[in-house]
Amino acid sequence: MKRNVYLDMKTIEEAQGLFLERFGRGRRTEAERVEVSEALGRITAEPVFARWSVPTYHSAAMDGAAVRAADTYGATETRPRRLEIGKEAVWINTGQPMPAGFNAVIMIEKIHPLGADRIEIRASAYPWQNVRKVGEDVVASQLLFTQDHRIRPYDIGALISAGVFDVPVRRRPLVAIIPTGTEIVPFEDARRIDAPEGTQIVESNAHLLSALVEECGGEAVICPVAPDQEDRVRQALQEALDLSPHVVIVNAGSSAGSRDFTAHAIGSMGEILVHGVAMMPGKPTILADVGGRPVVGNPGYAVSSVLSFEHFVKPLLYRLQGRRLPTGQTVVVTPVRDIPSKPGVEEFLRVNIGQVGGRYVAVPLPRAAGSITSLTRAEGLIRVPLLTEGISRKETVEATLLVDREELSRTVVMIGSHDMTIDILADELRRLGLPARIVSGNVGSLGGLLALKKGSCHMAGSHLLDVESGRYNLPYIERYLKEVQVAVFHLALRDQGLMVAKGNPKGIESLQDLTRPDVLFVNRQAGSGTRVLLDYSLQSAGIDSADVRGYDQEEFTHTAVAVDVVSGVADCGMGIFAAAKALDLDFIPVVREQYDVVVLREALESEAVRMAIETMRSDDFRRRVTAMGGYDPSRSGELWQEVG
Amino acid sequence: MKRNVYLDMKTIEEAQGLFLERFGRGRRTEAERVEVSEALGRITAEPVFARWSVPTYHSAAMDGAAVRAADTYGATETRPRRLEIGKEAVWINTGQPMPAGFNAVIMIEKIHPLGADRIEIRASAYPWQNVRKVGEDVVASQLLFTQDHRIRPYDIGALISAGVFDVPVRRRPLVAIIPTGTEIVPFEDARRIDAPEGTQIVESNAHLLSALVEECGGEAVICPVAPDQEDRVRQALQEALDLSPHVVIVNAGSSAGSRDFTAHAIGSMGEILVHGVAMMPGKPTILADVGGRPVVGNPGYAVSSVLSFEHFVKPLLYRLQGRRLPTGQTVVVTPVRDIPSKPGVEEFLRVNIGQVGGRYVAVPLPRAAGSITSLTRAEGLIRVPLLTEGISRKETVEATLLVDREELSRTVVMIGSHDMTIDILADELRRLGLPARIVSGNVGSLGGLLALKKGSCHMAGSHLLDVESGRYNLPYIERYLKEVQVAVFHLALRDQGLMVAKGNPKGIESLQDLTRPDVLFVNRQAGSGTRVLLDYSLQSAGIDSADVRGYDQEEFTHTAVAVDVVSGVADCGMGIFAAAKALDLDFIPVVREQYDVVVLREALESEAVRMAIETMRSDDFRRRVTAMGGYDPSRSGELWQEVG
Repeated sequence: MKRNVYLDMKTIEEAQGLFLERFGRGRRTEAERVEVSEALGRITAEPVFARWSVPTYHSAAMDGAAVRAADTYGATETRPRRLEIGKEAVWINTGQPMPAGFNAVIMIEKIHPLGADRIEIRASAYPWQNVRKVGEDVVASQLLFTQDHRIRPYDIGALISAGVFDVPVRRRPLVAIIPTGTEIVPFEDARRIDAPEGTQIVESNAHLLSALVEECGGEAVICPVAPDQEDRVRQALQEALDLSPHVVIVNAGSSAGSRDFTAHAIGSMGEILVHGVAMMPGKPTILADVGGRPVVGNPGYAVSSVLSFEHFVKPLLYRLQGRRLPTGQTVVVTPVRDIPSKPGVEEFLRVNIGQVGGRYVAVPLPRAAGSITSLTRAEGLIRVPLLTEGISRKETVEATLLVDREELSRTVVMIGSHDMTIDILADELRRLGLPARIVSGNVGSLGGLLALKKGSCHMAGSHLLDVESGRYNLPYIERYLKEVQVAVFHLALRDQGLMVAKGNPKGIESLQDLTRPDVLFVNRQAGSGTRVLLDYSLQSAGIDSADVRGYDQEEFTHTAVAVDVVSGVADCGMGIFAAAKALDLDFIPVVREQYDVVVLREALESEAVRMAIETMRSDDFRRRVTAMGGYDPSRSGELWQEVG
Repeated sequence: MKRNVYLDMKTIEEAQGLFLERFGRGRRTEAERVEVSEALGRITAEPVFARWSVPTYHSAAMDGAAVRAADTYGATETRPRRLEIGKEAVWINTGQPMPAGFNAVIMIEKIHPLGADRIEIRASAYPWQNVRKVGEDVVASQLLFTQDHRIRPYDIGALISAGVFDVPVRRRPLVAIIPTGTEIVPFEDARRIDAPEGTQIVESNAHLLSALVEECGGEAVICPVAPDQEDRVRQALQEALDLSPHVVIVNAGSSAGSRDFTAHAIGSMGEILVHGVAMMPGKPTILADVGGRPVVGNPGYAVSSVLSFEHFVKPLLYRLQGRRLPTGQTVVVTPVRDIPSKPGVEEFLRVNIGQVGGRYVAVPLPRAAGSITSLTRAEGLIRVPLLTEGISRKETVEATLLVDREELSRTVVMIGSHDMTIDILADELRRLGLPARIVSGNVGSLGGLLALKKGSCHMAGSHLLDVESGRYNLPYIERYLKEVQVAVFHLALRDQGLMVAKGNPKGIESLQDLTRPDVLFVNRQAGSGTRVLLDYSLQSAGIDSADVRGYDQEEFTHTAVAVDVVSGVADCGMGIFAAAKALDLDFIPVVREQYDVVVLREALESEAVRMAIETMRSDDFRRRVTAMGGYDPSRSGELWQEVG
């Protein structure tokens, strides 16, 4: 079996050096002239000089009377001077041109009118007092903007005022993007399919890359999809090069194999500078020179493709425009848990970030390179250095922000049990335009309580049944959260039950059926409220968990369990009605349980946290929760108990 | 005479309250559906849900062999298990679909091939190990984005992947901009004129505002210019309203009077909420409701117009899109000099900002509301509060940045004498792509030395002749910069002389002519090198300055003096050849002087400062300086003397 071996894998810095040295040094895109009114955001290709002066005529800088300064000399409080209107003084408003021969303006406040014909003044004016002179702001031929200047709205005003109607700017770098992969359905054709069949994948990376190019000030052309054949990739590359682009990106389909074709095709047409970068995601990146043009082979997974773009294409696009790469905003964060990582590659972890107490905490998102939502949901990126084995939750580390820093104070970190009402809550907060956003980490109910104890979240969703007392949550809080002050709010009562495939093909009726040899169960992780509930229910029903096939197979969310059932990984699992309904599964109710939100008392000082709780009480929130089915939100947001 | 009296002038906060309460609360622009590929930067109008799951099929998450987990149970280091290729194991690459019935992937690194047909494994696989399952990233019907979400490149990838090809987004707010003013030449017609004649002004504010609207995510329509007649403004307003815009801006011409027409026209058609805001620039702002639509009367001066837009239109445009207004970046600055300001209005001062030693210093730019370059050249805005009399140079104050913060470390603050070689130096730094930018404040040579002493600049341009020793600069440095360590570099030798109107109509030949009664002179300010040079030259020639008409009339730059001559304010003035040439004046050389740059020694640690000095030594810089005429740059950038 043939595999890609990255014998000469380069570090990010080495790869950037090779690539930018070859293509970035001193190179700029061509200059073109555009009308000033179209020049917003463009970069000047040459210095720009004023064609005429601003202002072009002397005008009054104040409302008042235009005078000849010499006529006013000697006027004082005790010896006022009188001037004849129309002859020695002319009424004038700010901005009006000075009458010929007049060289000063006396402010209206300093004038004593004597009837309609004369005024009296009690101080002399000096020449050009309160006059806006020709060239005061801009002098003809003056340098207005240096080259490599990015044109802002104000600049457009200055350019037009100084008679510059079109400006020499750098052409937007043209990036040709070639999607590859036999299984790829072009975006234009995607509307014709109801849903992907078999291994079909609708092309999305090229559009993602195109948007990134646009954000960098470039222009993207998406070429036709090239199938996984070396000669077809070669042909596509040649056609792309014929467009005379500044950069070509060959973006592998998400399926395997295509990157081999890419490497061979590129290698046969030019020089491969780098094949393999010590980064994760993004390792299979190819950087090449084909006929003097930069060609980048981007990995197929969305996150890999983005990171490869960010590290190689983006800096090149900025250089080609004569722009400096903006350094992103960063914050120092503490991970809520240890983050192990493989030494020898730099890993880019997508994380949610919130401010708890005085510090920022980072909640890692899924690490899979194919998880585009790990980027869309992230507030930041953590770079795990080349030679470390990861980041401990006892360390702090720098995170590059993907959102504005001020948004972080709006993040409510909710670590604990997963529930769909939290998604609704998050959406309600946004719908109402409230400055609060909920980020949830799913570690089960007990995990949430422990996160509260460590101060790494604001609140925790919990539905832990105490088997002995039959009470929810409080016994656990008393046991695990000694010395931590919390307030417990109701979120909802909800049905838990067995999720089974549509039509219930295995005829599962109750927990008893879990012991059948033909029934494969999928469990929730130990420590989760659902697990406790299952164990309690099994015990009450006198069932030994050892008799349940798949009891040891654990998932971390209701949805994951539902996905296992819908995809045939298991026949049934315990979960909530909403999860079953979302995936069109059948649902057999087992018990109605109490789901609460446990909030750090000090976190109640945060406006965002308070808004989240208030929103739980709103009619709209309750209506939406009710509409999902399987919930009773009549006490949502109600303070149940303060502890500690 | 009729004047605008702002009887019920509102503070900014009051005016914003009235305006946004009326138009911003809960209002949003209409929803429209756009194709995802066109949705970058748009704001979702509703929650967006996944149409299908991602991935849509089970695939390998690793390169290796697909197996049935059950077939591998029991395999250990000591009891390896053999699997037949094609039957029990199938080679698979990352991303490839799992063969039907197979539910785990064994990594290639863990496989021991036994010929072509069989492999050996030494550990068991658990079900779904190394498999990317259906719905792992996105589950069909899952919430992808809440409403009011701004679509980023990643989001486009996620949307297409999940089968969402068009998205409901808010319409871009439509802003109709009406330029007014009889003297205004529409931009479209501006190419037909060589230069403005008389009081003609080429329309620029509407284009500036249009670019600001675009930056806020809106769409602008520039209406035909309305002349200064109430009925014509009213007609223009009606035509604008007929476009069903979300906002109308009536932008007064820069000339006076037009704002009266605006107020009357708006008042006759609707309700004026605010007329006059306690801000400077921007006081004449009008905020009105015409038939339920927001109408803003923007003042005519460019800076006023921008500030009025920033405070009233911008927040409204953000609200209409369901976006939060970004709070700008700020830094704490110390002004290099006292900044007096009128109590009762909030003043917005445009400032240059540089980092000298450990602190940021702010150099105020011209305050005139008509000075568009005060915005284009600014790095920040200082807001002087309503009830203060200004800001002392002993205070610190917050400045809102107009550039990225990181750009501030590139700012070289050069306070002192003005010279055109500094503009060339600034441009060379940019042309070479160097991260250094020169900001110059013109306070004359002596002012520059005093600024160095206070630590409010990095370097000072100086050409102070010591009359007794005949030496330049050093005697002054020894006198005024005790205890300050500086290094003195040559910038250039340059010609100083008399600038006279083209053709020298008054026949001025030498300094002797300055005593003629028909010759009006314009002087440079006391403390400037040119003033010292003039005094020295007059003295040497035995001329009494009391005999020079206009000796007391002072300007602060060579260019200002040249402008006075070209505009007839004076017949001649002392200055440099380049200034005369730039304005097409005749030049009578008087003396060749030494222009140096005095640099704080500690500032030499700044990379930007070092780059500026190195660039003075470059051939390109010297060639450009020589080309201006009147300069000898052969020793430019040479270290002349270290003092202290």
